[in-house]
Amino acid sequence: MSRYAARAAENLARLRAEKPLVHNITNFVVMNYTANVLLAAGASPVMAHADNEVEEMVALAGALVLNIGTLTDTWLAAMLTAGRKASELGRPIVLDPVGAGATRLRTDAARRLLAETRVSVVRGNASEILALAGADIKTKGVDATRSVPEAAAAARDLARSLGTTLAVTGKTDLVTDGERALLIEGGHPLMPAVTGTGCSATALVAAFHAIDPDPVLAAATGLAFFGVAGEAAGDGAPGPGTFMIRLLDTLHTLTPDELAARCRIREA
Amino acid sequence: MSRYAARAAENLARLRAEKPLVHNITNFVVMNYTANVLLAAGASPVMAHADNEVEEMVALAGALVLNIGTLTDTWLAAMLTAGRKASELGRPIVLDPVGAGATRLRTDAARRLLAETRVSVVRGNASEILALAGADIKTKGVDATRSVPEAAAAARDLARSLGTTLAVTGKTDLVTDGERALLIEGGHPLMPAVTGTGCSATALVAAFHAIDPDPVLAAATGLAFFGVAGEAAGDGAPGPGTFMIRLLDTLHTLTPDELAARCRIREA
Amino acid sequence: MSRYAARAAENLARLRAEKPLVHNITNFVVMNYTANVLLAAGASPVMAHADNEVEEMVALAGALVLNIGTLTDTWLAAMLTAGRKASELGRPIVLDPVGAGATRLRTDAARRLLAETRVSVVRGNASEILALAGADIKTKGVDATRSVPEAAAAARDLARSLGTTLAVTGKTDLVTDGERALLIEGGHPLMPAVTGTGCSATALVAAFHAIDPDPVLAAATGLAFFGVAGEAAGDGAPGPGTFMIRLLDTLHTLTPDELAARCRIREA
Repeated sequence: MSRYAARAAENLARLRAEKPLVHNITNFVVMNYTANVLLAAGASPVMAHADNEVEEMVALAGALVLNIGTLTDTWLAAMLTAGRKASELGRPIVLDPVGAGATRLRTDAARRLLAETRVSVVRGNASEILALAGADIKTKGVDATRSVPEAAAAARDLARSLGTTLAVTGKTDLVTDGERALLIEGGHPLMPAVTGTGCSATALVAAFHAIDPDPVLAAATGLAFFGVAGEAAGDGAPGPGTFMIRLLDTLHTLTPDELAARCRIREA
Repeated sequence: MSRYAARAAENLARLRAEKPLVHNITNFVVMNYTANVLLAAGASPVMAHADNEVEEMVALAGALVLNIGTLTDTWLAAMLTAGRKASELGRPIVLDPVGAGATRLRTDAARRLLAETRVSVVRGNASEILALAGADIKTKGVDATRSVPEAAAAARDLARSLGTTLAVTGKTDLVTDGERALLIEGGHPLMPAVTGTGCSATALVAAFHAIDPDPVLAAATGLAFFGVAGEAAGDGAPGPGTFMIRLLDTLHTLTPDELAARCRIREA
Repeated sequence: MSRYAARAAENLARLRAEKPLVHNITNFVVMNYTANVLLAAGASPVMAHADNEVEEMVALAGALVLNIGTLTDTWLAAMLTAGRKASELGRPIVLDPVGAGATRLRTDAARRLLAETRVSVVRGNASEILALAGADIKTKGVDATRSVPEAAAAARDLARSLGTTLAVTGKTDLVTDGERALLIEGGHPLMPAVTGTGCSATALVAAFHAIDPDPVLAAATGLAFFGVAGEAAGDGAPGPGTFMIRLLDTLHTLTPDELAARCRIREA
């Protein structure tokens, strides 16, 4: 067993033992599914976005998810309040820049959250991550239009320049802090046919980060867990509906040993 | 058959015959699942939270659900407007104090709704209910950290002092108005692994209350129905995803006779 | 094969090839399911409602959905902003007047969206559509209380007077622009037991309209697709939970040929 596989198994066991509270300020589309993904995996999700509540809530939490889908200025303000408090308290922040590059509101918001809070990991598709760099690209809504390999070089540089860890997901996932870089295999072709699978990956990265302080290992093991669960859920699934329900089942039942046996993390 | 089992069966039959409109001002996480639970059971759900609409909507409804998950001041204001109108019209109000005790916003909101509207039933877990009493406890996000037995004595006193009916759910559910106290068995270990099962219980209590004016019997029979459906749904379910889907199926197909045969309500 | 069946098959094939972006400003209850329905069918959904983002987003989209469930004045303002931009750019707008007739807010909002933007298709149940006419009716929440045949004559006249296409759904669906009128059979008795099936029909009409400029044919073929998928999903389904998941599966796997063979569109 590789040391990454061992870490993945260890993290999953700790997650289920400690059931960390994960505070999500996320979009309306995926709130329900994200909460179910976190519960299935063993974490304790809470969704709270009131500006006059988020500081208290994040203080109770082990990690904070900031997800800019269905964003408005009011929600951005609450994200900044929560993010600043989390930064002050040393709680890991995981940012999901949904649709960055598609509209100014989203691109600016993602950059502002990066600048004004201590984001530990950014989880996005290649287009969204590249948009953070100010690269001259237009994303098509919230879907990925660039491949992971295309984004890999840019990601290393960008991680270094932003001083954060980037988790770029696609057919192969890439996690890098600018120094280390890990590739993770897994998942299933039905995943992009279900809304919120990317957001769920983000939430799982946060859950793993709540119990693993290393952002690269937390992100890689969280994504590996999601990928292995996705493979198992997709096996024989007749379509995306059945797949998304089975995914909750497999996130719940997959054991640390099974994860260790099947997870495929390697150095880039 | 006990008179409670008979009442449960009668209420379920009436619910399906009358299809009462249940007006929900509830949280973003559970809106979809709550609506599906109410539809599956036989009620007509509507979600509406605009301050300039809720009075008109609640006047059309048989019951009002106020659920403070994902609360903001704007939503609280709409809840107060709707709650006052419902009080004036004699529509039963069922309050779900999601996360009361976890943050000031939620604790204060729950107490204010209790003080300023005629809440007929409060449905929560033991921690949330105890938080209404001002007991010196901190809840862990929105999860229960106290057991039902621990909360039972406090619940009777609290129901009396608040002048409302309390429905405290956990492994065993307790319903009390301070005088009468009923215990309800049922449910399944997978229930806490699905988000919104507590909120769904609240919504079903409201649906039963729309056709049964007795708050203790409405709450007890609504919870018994949910518990029996949960048991049936959980039987052989491979995980929380399949469970939550089967639960909608069983809420839809369970007959009044089956409910009467399996429901376990007893006096405390 | 009728020319309508051929058009349905052609539209489905184009939808899957072109994957048009469908911009939804819709209600909280159905956002997740609507996004999953669009993804399953082959479209690219995006949900965005910030007043300072919607013009940019709708410019990227092939069609715009305006759905007034869970409406507030703020959301209505964003719908008007997006709708005016879409009108200017010639993007088809599909309006879902959820609950029109039930409250003043909703009735007025639906009429204002019709008056101030170029709505291409209105998809609603008979009660909601009739409410647009100012007919003296009260809808029961968001459920249909009038049958399609009752609404048919009024629909033709109303379509002509409003200068839009009306898609009135029920046991039999009716699509008319005042001149042409088509009837569509399909669906399953479990559909009304799942929240958001009407809203999903609306979203599919928008997706089909993004690749078919004829509003009558886009609406009729989109509804026929949904109806055929619903029939297949309902076959043997034990209840509404399983049904709603299978519906996503069938929307994903149904082929254009199967659609052509099973779709039942005829002239009224």
